[in-house]
Amino acid sequence: MKSHITNALSDFFFEYETQRQVLVRNRRVGVVCRLIQLGVLAYIIGMRLTLHTGPPHLTQGSHRVTLGLNDPKSRQLWVFIYEKGYQSTDTAVSSVFTKMKGVGYTNIDGKEEIWDVADYVFPSQGDASFVVMTNFIITKNQTMGKCPELPGRDNCTTNADCEEGRYKRQMTGVCLNLTHTCEVLAWCPVENDHTIPDPALLVSAENYTLFIKNSITFPLFEVTRSNLVEGIDGKYISKCLFNPNTDPLCPIMRLGDVVKYSGFDFATIAKVGAAIGIVVDWTCNFDVSVKHCKPVYTFHGLYGNPAQKGDVKASTGYNFRYAKHYMDDKEPKRTLLKVFGIRIDIIVQSLARKFDIIPTLTAIGSGVGIFGVATDVEAEAAVESEGSTEKKEIAK
Amino acid sequence: MKSHITNALSDFFFEYETQRQVLVRNRRVGVVCRLIQLGVLAYIIGMRLTLHTGPPHLTQGSHRVTLGLNDPKSRQLWVFIYEKGYQSTDTAVSSVFTKMKGVGYTNIDGKEEIWDVADYVFPSQGDASFVVMTNFIITKNQTMGKCPELPGRDNCTTNADCEEGRYKRQMTGVCLNLTHTCEVLAWCPVENDHTIPDPALLVSAENYTLFIKNSITFPLFEVTRSNLVEGIDGKYISKCLFNPNTDPLCPIMRLGDVVKYSGFDFATIAKVGAAIGIVVDWTCNFDVSVKHCKPVYTFHGLYGNPAQKGDVKASTGYNFRYAKHYMDDKEPKRTLLKVFGIRIDIIVQSLARKFDIIPTLTAIGSGVGIFGVATDVEAEAAVESEGSTEKKEIAK
Amino acid sequence: MKSHITNALSDFFFEYETQRQVLVRNRRVGVVCRLIQLGVLAYIIGMRLTLHTGPPHLTQGSHRVTLGLNDPKSRQLWVFIYEKGYQSTDTAVSSVFTKMKGVGYTNIDGKEEIWDVADYVFPSQGDASFVVMTNFIITKNQTMGKCPELPGRDNCTTNADCEEGRYKRQMTGVCLNLTHTCEVLAWCPVENDHTIPDPALLVSAENYTLFIKNSITFPLFEVTRSNLVEGIDGKYISKCLFNPNTDPLCPIMRLGDVVKYSGFDFATIAKVGAAIGIVVDWTCNFDVSVKHCKPVYTFHGLYGNPAQKGDVKASTGYNFRYAKHYMDDKEPKRTLLKVFGIRIDIIVQSLARKFDIIPTLTAIGSGVGIFGVATDVEAEAAVESEGSTEKKEIAK
Repeated sequence: MKSHITNALSDFFFEYETQRQVLVRNRRVGVVCRLIQLGVLAYIIGMRLTLHTGPPHLTQGSHRVTLGLNDPKSRQLWVFIYEKGYQSTDTAVSSVFTKMKGVGYTNIDGKEEIWDVADYVFPSQGDASFVVMTNFIITKNQTMGKCPELPGRDNCTTNADCEEGRYKRQMTGVCLNLTHTCEVLAWCPVENDHTIPDPALLVSAENYTLFIKNSITFPLFEVTRSNLVEGIDGKYISKCLFNPNTDPLCPIMRLGDVVKYSGFDFATIAKVGAAIGIVVDWTCNFDVSVKHCKPVYTFHGLYGNPAQKGDVKASTGYNFRYAKHYMDDKEPKRTLLKVFGIRIDIIVQSLARKFDIIPTLTAIGSGVGIFGVATDVEAEAAVESEGSTEKKEIAK
Repeated sequence: MKSHITNALSDFFFEYETQRQVLVRNRRVGVVCRLIQLGVLAYIIGMRLTLHTGPPHLTQGSHRVTLGLNDPKSRQLWVFIYEKGYQSTDTAVSSVFTKMKGVGYTNIDGKEEIWDVADYVFPSQGDASFVVMTNFIITKNQTMGKCPELPGRDNCTTNADCEEGRYKRQMTGVCLNLTHTCEVLAWCPVENDHTIPDPALLVSAENYTLFIKNSITFPLFEVTRSNLVEGIDGKYISKCLFNPNTDPLCPIMRLGDVVKYSGFDFATIAKVGAAIGIVVDWTCNFDVSVKHCKPVYTFHGLYGNPAQKGDVKASTGYNFRYAKHYMDDKEPKRTLLKVFGIRIDIIVQSLARKFDIIPTLTAIGSGVGIFGVATDVEAEAAVESEGSTEKKEIAK
Repeated sequence: MKSHITNALSDFFFEYETQRQVLVRNRRVGVVCRLIQLGVLAYIIGMRLTLHTGPPHLTQGSHRVTLGLNDPKSRQLWVFIYEKGYQSTDTAVSSVFTKMKGVGYTNIDGKEEIWDVADYVFPSQGDASFVVMTNFIITKNQTMGKCPELPGRDNCTTNADCEEGRYKRQMTGVCLNLTHTCEVLAWCPVENDHTIPDPALLVSAENYTLFIKNSITFPLFEVTRSNLVEGIDGKYISKCLFNPNTDPLCPIMRLGDVVKYSGFDFATIAKVGAAIGIVVDWTCNFDVSVKHCKPVYTFHGLYGNPAQKGDVKASTGYNFRYAKHYMDDKEPKRTLLKVFGIRIDIIVQSLARKFDIIPTLTAIGSGVGIFGVATDVEAEAAVESEGSTEKKEIAK
């Protein structure tokens, strides 16, 4: 019994199985085999090495009109080589703060007015998503009461035309002879937004500046970065203005430039509003120094281009209503603003990579698999073409 | 020397090694082997092909009460077959804008009032996350001063009971005999939120409509889509209303429907508030036409169902306080609103896929690996059962 | 013809090829081979099993000053073993609601004032990202008009120094002799923010509490969780206060603690403001009971530490301007607040895992690949060292 176990153990430790191999010696077959193998090798392994020698280098400061973020070909290669390659990846947690600067000026019927940050940014607290007012329809001194609808809307001839209970407006059931419109219970006078001021009242918004602060952390690699990278210090910020070619890392942008880079025409969208996405792209390779991990800003029109062809009318412009409430002689009143503006969404995209042994092994493993298949197929072909099948038959 | 190198080179190029193989001829073993191989093949490769013939087709417009987004089985299969399969994947960057429509009406003590968008939506600028006010407790004409606490709160008999320094309220240290409560320094009069108006004051909110605009971009595939897909034009939008069965792509939803689809009872949550998530799911396969990439809307109760059993009281309802400041006879005053409302979060989920050579090769490679193992195991079993081990011993 | 097909079929079904193998019997080579194999096995498979026996256990309630979320080593291992291992992964869709509590008190020039939630939280509706005001510069009773710039800014001696058209301020082109500064068209009087109140006016903010509600859903696994997990009921919430060691699951946090955990000094940042990220980390393993899926709160300074060395001045502090508009004798006026505050971003991070057959097979497949390579290399080395190459030459 004991010797049995000893034998089995010694067999396990001292014996080793390996495959018997056939050596084919034939010029044509040999060359073809080697060439195919070389091709596969070059594809699987070579490509990885070749492309890694250069550091990750996306076209910095690209500013396309279409929403294509980067060159798709190079990026696809990029993603696969790295994702399936020798590196592990991580996406970041990020925070964005914004600050607008600049003063707007309007002169309506000789009445000069100034619009500062507290007046034209919604919301005021510096969110990643906010609206800069560029145009507005103001309805002052609204009080709760009964008044006629606007001419052209809810026209009527008799009281019967003004039935109650519709949710769009609260009808009183009275048809007013003066205007031939239904009487409504509403904030009166009713807002008249038939004509949008043209040109936009606050075209001076073109010269406002936007300051973006973005903090980003890759938890896996324990790296924290800010868009105020090395060299972007207080002195530089105090005088720089973002330009994709000359100042691609300056976090201060002219609103007019942002609109231009996103493919819009400022005068047009200032009138009816639009939505713009500013993508802050952090594609980092932590195999090289962390200092090379820098943001790339790109600009994209999201919605509201009135010049767009084939666009449905419903998605043109960007506007919302906003009320300032106050008391006047113990009576609550409000000033209603229909705000047309440029909505800006700061969107942070991130992908970091670093060498890691596990994905490397996995990549090699899968490479070996494919390599093996290729080799087998060739070999079989080769051997068969030679008619030298070294198969032995074991008949029952 | 030279002939040595030449020999080595000619050996490298003209020789080729392959394995010697054994041909087993046995009915039982053969059939079993082929069946196992077929099974593995079917699993690894067949499944992929079979499932790919049909386009990605998730249950459109499903509206579950629980937060299960899609059929888990089919989705799991889906994810693995595609993620590990022949396609590369990408998630999108997205932007969401919202717009509410509709007018609310209240009649409190004979005083009729109208509530429009500028009054009942917080914040006003059309964010992806906002609150629709459905009920409120209003405390008008608050001024900064000293007044008694509400009966039932901070009861006292002597001044000693009203010690200063508690952060919940600023005590003056005086016990007021009239109310038997401590005097506080606060916006006076103090808000009394002991009773919540029931039914909700703005139950008419059920008929408000919500318009969702969602722009989405898959950077890897350079595809930009909007939820106003082909066929969803201005004409359709002007009269459609979202319905998961008949109008699953209409971006205009009745608030009452949204509440119903998310499993809440409108009358109940209108009173105390709740939070609802509207998930816009973009699961796209770009191997087929981009026109098939359409959003699927699902609705989920996130918080605040007062009817939920076993729910802790702390998580019931949704409310916040909001103040309108004004000046009255040079004195700053405010109207405090305790707002109960339906908070809506538009959550965009995205996953796009497209054929790619690298993941395909990887999938095949790994498939080959498993196939190889399966084959080896069978073969060994087969050969051993035959007692025909073709092993040669090389004894030392 | 028919017999041909029958033959081919019978060959296919009843024949089976396998490799001829060589059995090497040699102590030294055998032991070395087995050891290498064991090492590879231990690495590929053993590691997975070993590390799986313990449930996922991240350092709960860790509160670091740096933004490193977890121990990187263990996490890296973690990620790879699981991502590449036998589990499939999913990230969650989540919603966050917040509620501040507490009352602030200021005494400016003998004028006592109270600041409640409706006054010091921006925005008011309980977003995942909000600002708590801790300090402010108030400019009351601003009206639209003409007034001199502040001394020290836009100094002038003649009208020529005050050229129009600069967007920072709207100049009238007049140099005022009294102040030797340019006259501007603005909300007057102009805000003077040269000196920031020190200490902060609302240092009592340290005692405010923050209540976080977080709902999370893993669509793939159909699991919905809330941060009010089992045991965190209404009774517990009514009296608990977050502490990473004693109460790591209490969703109510003292603002002073949040600031401390994020590495800031409260008195310092209360004055100039700062930004803090509260990361709610859901790392769940659904192979064990769903009850073990609990949130981990960590705190990170994002921006604005004035004590930070080497920090550019531009990124210090956090402030924004906010206006309360009102009517005074038919004239629109406003109270401008320059708000310094603590901005809090609730950031939800999630990663769930569950056993799945496909990633398991893929992992085994890739493991087999690597194992195979290792084995081959050894075997070849072993065989060659023995000089017993069992190769047969087939010369043409």
